[in-house]
Amino acid sequence: MIARLVPGCSVAAKAEIIRHIEGQGLRVHVGDSGTSTVVSIIGNPSPRLADELQALSGVDSVTLEAPSYPLVSLDSQPGPSVVKVDSVSFGDTPVVVIAGPCSVESSEQLNTIARSVASSGAVMLRGGAFKPRTSPYSFQGLGVEGLELLHDAGSGNGLKVVSECVAPEDVAVMVEHVDMIQIGARNMQNFRLLSAVGEQPKPVLLKRGLMSTIDEFLLAAEYIMSSGNPRVVMCERGIRSFDTSTRSTLDISAVPVLKEMTHLPVIIDPSHAAGRRSLVPSLAAAGVAAGADGLIVEVHNQPDQALSDGAQSLTLDGFADSMKTIANVAGALGRSVALL
Amino acid sequence: MIARLVPGCSVAAKAEIIRHIEGQGLRVHVGDSGTSTVVSIIGNPSPRLADELQALSGVDSVTLEAPSYPLVSLDSQPGPSVVKVDSVSFGDTPVVVIAGPCSVESSEQLNTIARSVASSGAVMLRGGAFKPRTSPYSFQGLGVEGLELLHDAGSGNGLKVVSECVAPEDVAVMVEHVDMIQIGARNMQNFRLLSAVGEQPKPVLLKRGLMSTIDEFLLAAEYIMSSGNPRVVMCERGIRSFDTSTRSTLDISAVPVLKEMTHLPVIIDPSHAAGRRSLVPSLAAAGVAAGADGLIVEVHNQPDQALSDGAQSLTLDGFADSMKTIANVAGALGRSVALL
Amino acid sequence: MIARLVPGCSVAAKAEIIRHIEGQGLRVHVGDSGTSTVVSIIGNPSPRLADELQALSGVDSVTLEAPSYPLVSLDSQPGPSVVKVDSVSFGDTPVVVIAGPCSVESSEQLNTIARSVASSGAVMLRGGAFKPRTSPYSFQGLGVEGLELLHDAGSGNGLKVVSECVAPEDVAVMVEHVDMIQIGARNMQNFRLLSAVGEQPKPVLLKRGLMSTIDEFLLAAEYIMSSGNPRVVMCERGIRSFDTSTRSTLDISAVPVLKEMTHLPVIIDPSHAAGRRSLVPSLAAAGVAAGADGLIVEVHNQPDQALSDGAQSLTLDGFADSMKTIANVAGALGRSVALL
Amino acid sequence: MIARLVPGCSVAAKAEIIRHIEGQGLRVHVGDSGTSTVVSIIGNPSPRLADELQALSGVDSVTLEAPSYPLVSLDSQPGPSVVKVDSVSFGDTPVVVIAGPCSVESSEQLNTIARSVASSGAVMLRGGAFKPRTSPYSFQGLGVEGLELLHDAGSGNGLKVVSECVAPEDVAVMVEHVDMIQIGARNMQNFRLLSAVGEQPKPVLLKRGLMSTIDEFLLAAEYIMSSGNPRVVMCERGIRSFDTSTRSTLDISAVPVLKEMTHLPVIIDPSHAAGRRSLVPSLAAAGVAAGADGLIVEVHNQPDQALSDGAQSLTLDGFADSMKTIANVAGALGRSVALL
Repeated sequence: MIARLVPGCSVAAKAEIIRHIEGQGLRVHVGDSGTSTVVSIIGNPSPRLADELQALSGVDSVTLEAPSYPLVSLDSQPGPSVVKVDSVSFGDTPVVVIAGPCSVESSEQLNTIARSVASSGAVMLRGGAFKPRTSPYSFQGLGVEGLELLHDAGSGNGLKVVSECVAPEDVAVMVEHVDMIQIGARNMQNFRLLSAVGEQPKPVLLKRGLMSTIDEFLLAAEYIMSSGNPRVVMCERGIRSFDTSTRSTLDISAVPVLKEMTHLPVIIDPSHAAGRRSLVPSLAAAGVAAGADGLIVEVHNQPDQALSDGAQSLTLDGFADSMKTIANVAGALGRSVALL
Repeated sequence: MIARLVPGCSVAAKAEIIRHIEGQGLRVHVGDSGTSTVVSIIGNPSPRLADELQALSGVDSVTLEAPSYPLVSLDSQPGPSVVKVDSVSFGDTPVVVIAGPCSVESSEQLNTIARSVASSGAVMLRGGAFKPRTSPYSFQGLGVEGLELLHDAGSGNGLKVVSECVAPEDVAVMVEHVDMIQIGARNMQNFRLLSAVGEQPKPVLLKRGLMSTIDEFLLAAEYIMSSGNPRVVMCERGIRSFDTSTRSTLDISAVPVLKEMTHLPVIIDPSHAAGRRSLVPSLAAAGVAAGADGLIVEVHNQPDQALSDGAQSLTLDGFADSMKTIANVAGALGRSVALL
Repeated sequence: MIARLVPGCSVAAKAEIIRHIEGQGLRVHVGDSGTSTVVSIIGNPSPRLADELQALSGVDSVTLEAPSYPLVSLDSQPGPSVVKVDSVSFGDTPVVVIAGPCSVESSEQLNTIARSVASSGAVMLRGGAFKPRTSPYSFQGLGVEGLELLHDAGSGNGLKVVSECVAPEDVAVMVEHVDMIQIGARNMQNFRLLSAVGEQPKPVLLKRGLMSTIDEFLLAAEYIMSSGNPRVVMCERGIRSFDTSTRSTLDISAVPVLKEMTHLPVIIDPSHAAGRRSLVPSLAAAGVAAGADGLIVEVHNQPDQALSDGAQSLTLDGFADSMKTIANVAGALGRSVALL
Repeated sequence: MIARLVPGCSVAAKAEIIRHIEGQGLRVHVGDSGTSTVVSIIGNPSPRLADELQALSGVDSVTLEAPSYPLVSLDSQPGPSVVKVDSVSFGDTPVVVIAGPCSVESSEQLNTIARSVASSGAVMLRGGAFKPRTSPYSFQGLGVEGLELLHDAGSGNGLKVVSECVAPEDVAVMVEHVDMIQIGARNMQNFRLLSAVGEQPKPVLLKRGLMSTIDEFLLAAEYIMSSGNPRVVMCERGIRSFDTSTRSTLDISAVPVLKEMTHLPVIIDPSHAAGRRSLVPSLAAAGVAAGADGLIVEVHNQPDQALSDGAQSLTLDGFADSMKTIANVAGALGRSVALL
């Protein structure tokens, strides 16, 4: 059930409406722009509630049928959300670029990369410390030590940092060290983990699962939002198809499709989709042209010696070149690249 | 690295070989049949180890190149494994049938179903207590109370019980209540969870992810085995394809393909693949004909009122009928249906 | 629009009903069993026609909404169709087995194979003369000479023959030489070819496209039937999915799914699905267990020297062994293997 | 086998080399830029030929291993090909836009659309006269009459025209009426049709099959080129995946992947991929950003009344708006939109 309030509804009237709903053991989400307000009711409201709300001062209309993801849906919000990672804004006019290595390997590696990507135009640094690896015998990441290195390289170079969290028991340590918590593709339906990152205060970068429909992706975001955290950024990173010419098939259509369904920002990851670096600049440009609010790109100073995903990492120079094209394409669409 | 021992190698010689390997900080897995033995070395052995082993008494041959899943591979075991859940044996000549509702709903429901499926030939009872649901607003299961009901219905009707575990923090309570722990399709690459069930003593039923390759499936089993638990049963339950005429596309070929790659037992879940009950008996029969060691089938006394997956649940009578066909097909292949 | 006639409707009444429909420029299909009759109206009937038909003697009921494939649909026929290739019957209790090489290579090759598969229990011989090859530089088949060799090997060994037709201009020569015309997976939506084989008298073996939905498959059969040829046998041969462990993913569920939607016989091709011979016997058995009315299996006397698809061809002995299992599984389901 | 000639090789030396090869019953393809030349040998050359060629004046090096699509491969051509449709050039710096309705419906419809898309920046007009329809009961196109209407609307508005050919027997009439012949997705592996359009003089627009790998797509183009027609434009139009949020999944990566493998121009069809008009402008922009040499877009003056594919057709105004973005994105990459 969704209630749309009249324009200019007073704070007192709003409070009364929310009190009425919560008094029946239900929860609410309030989507607010300067001029209009949408109240989504979470839970199983009694059929009478619609009439009761309609009778309250300030309520314009009540819709019984809510989408299956009421908080994430475009219906619940009068316009696109801006998700802030401190000074960085996803969902605003400028396109946000996150760059960095697949895995945190050493302080030196990370600082070399951070310095370079910052000078090329990235505003956030990525780096994996807890790696979900297909084989139990592959490098599993540096763990907490990796998070510390990431945090230091970020703050030393003026970059906000994001890293992947793979289990609820790691959430607390992630919160301490990173500015944004990533949920990886393999964990997109790890519902306990989604709830756990929904109960902490840092913004979440949610990657689409390799096998996930758009609806499942939106419902995964709904898990996070319904657990209390409204700051979610959606990331398309390629799906699995019969085609083997790339590591995953970048579902570029997911960008405009998601924009029609949710108010949350949408970014793309051209690196994991491509699986090899030569394709990354084209896919990055295509992502921005399709309307993405940002990019997350793998960059390494010595890709051939990377402990993971070297083949798909851009070199420092390759990233710098790619950023020029990205800025041009963003400009062509009336956008820009977000600055530090 | 894999060492094959000479037939009839003495226990003392075996012990010496293992001691030698473990003395280098490595771990071993010993695959043993009555007549031959294979020792798999886990970790990164020094190149010299092959020569050292070759020189030891009892070693027949050493293979440097090990498969990427050394414990799970058919190479590590001189024949198929039998995984026992107390008196129930997966991987032996008789085909094991697990049946029961998608979700545990009540004591009465569960006992009605358990009594009926036992009389029709099932030897294990399934029932979900912790449900991984796509939407945060769907029924999430009865939790520990559900496990207790499941345990009671199983022991009251002479059936072993299996239920899904969705998070490492629940492993302990699962071990208390169930005979076999299921890892669901969505968690097939939840590596922390795989490690957690690898560190406890109960056998594990591992379902294939909806978009997992056979290699990824085997590596998921390797996570469990390399954490210490050799009792893993693989379950094909349908993959995601472009085809929408069924809920998932049952990859029937996975049965003979897996049998060529691993010594672990393989069963199929015709219910989740089909998504509607009318198809289940045909797919169950096909699974047995393809060489599956067992089946896990959703059965409900009132499918139309089931809290989840009612459409794909057989009725009690439907299951009884289906069991007759299953027994006939098993017989045609020189197998039988496992009895209590 | 579909009209169901009363049981025992006289021939004169039937004729009057058909005359009435055809008098409005429409075409009809009459589905007849011993006891009941269904008349499907092809074209765009006027809305009044339903009332007119209802008023005629012999009409029991009229359904306005027809399925999008009225001729192929189970609704248009009171029971399963039996499609006869001379003395061979698809869709009857016995399971029909077609065997033979991918390509016709020589008289000697073909006679060796034909003699052997006949003695093992096949009743039809397959062999490609016009090969649709992915590369223009691959062996394209022996053409008409191949058809002659196939015809001779068939009649010399008491086997009916089937071969693939790849273009409308070849239909006439196919009709002269073969007992059944195959439409291959790549041509399932070559609509001119479908119409062309619909306008000739020989039965058609229609293979499902690698990425065709069940609806598209049924509509392809509808093209053939609506062009005048009711004798169509559907063949599931594997679809394309992300999985690369087999050449194609055998969609075993297609067998029971099709059986719920069409009266036409359904067979499976385990060889093209598997892509390697070791998997073929399991998939063949699974196909029969799932309810298939027949199998088409690639068999070669010297698979390693085959000009095409050697890897997936059974040896003569392998086929003989596989036939024993197939017969056992058919027997377990109350069926048998069709005899010459 | 591929022979690379020395820079500045004389015409006489080239002629001698070609004569030598053709004298052995082989065919050649000569790829020429201003400064270098590659001679591809088609057929099965004798092993001695490499030595013989090496001994000839003007031969720089000989490569034995040719790609499986020697004519289409980037190896056979020292740079990208430009395919001309009279004054329109695919593969040059300007991006070519083709627009028009799915089906030719009437002279008035076509002229209204042609006039409008020409003024918005399209240089070619599309329109189907022979439609490959999934159902035998759907509108199959106006046939030759449709081609005449298309030809007239094109020449009346200064646009070159392209239309789909569905059977070899229609090639002659297509050649008479259109400037470019389209092979549709369903016919990408209709090898007789590929050969037929390879034997006529008009350029070919080859669409990728819904289920086709990149290799199969390139081999389909090789069929056309090896039949004698070097003027092929490749078109990515969406593949089939599990995702149902769009009609097909636009494989945007195919653009840079193909650019690494072939010298032929590559365009995209955002309309068939999307399946609904709201997504088309984003996908069109993404295609250009990914490096496509052109676009083919469905446009209709009254989409809601279109006989086919109305849902995915842009309105006249929608197309005009989309062209502005396309021109901006092309400009951002140093390209432009091709003018009449």
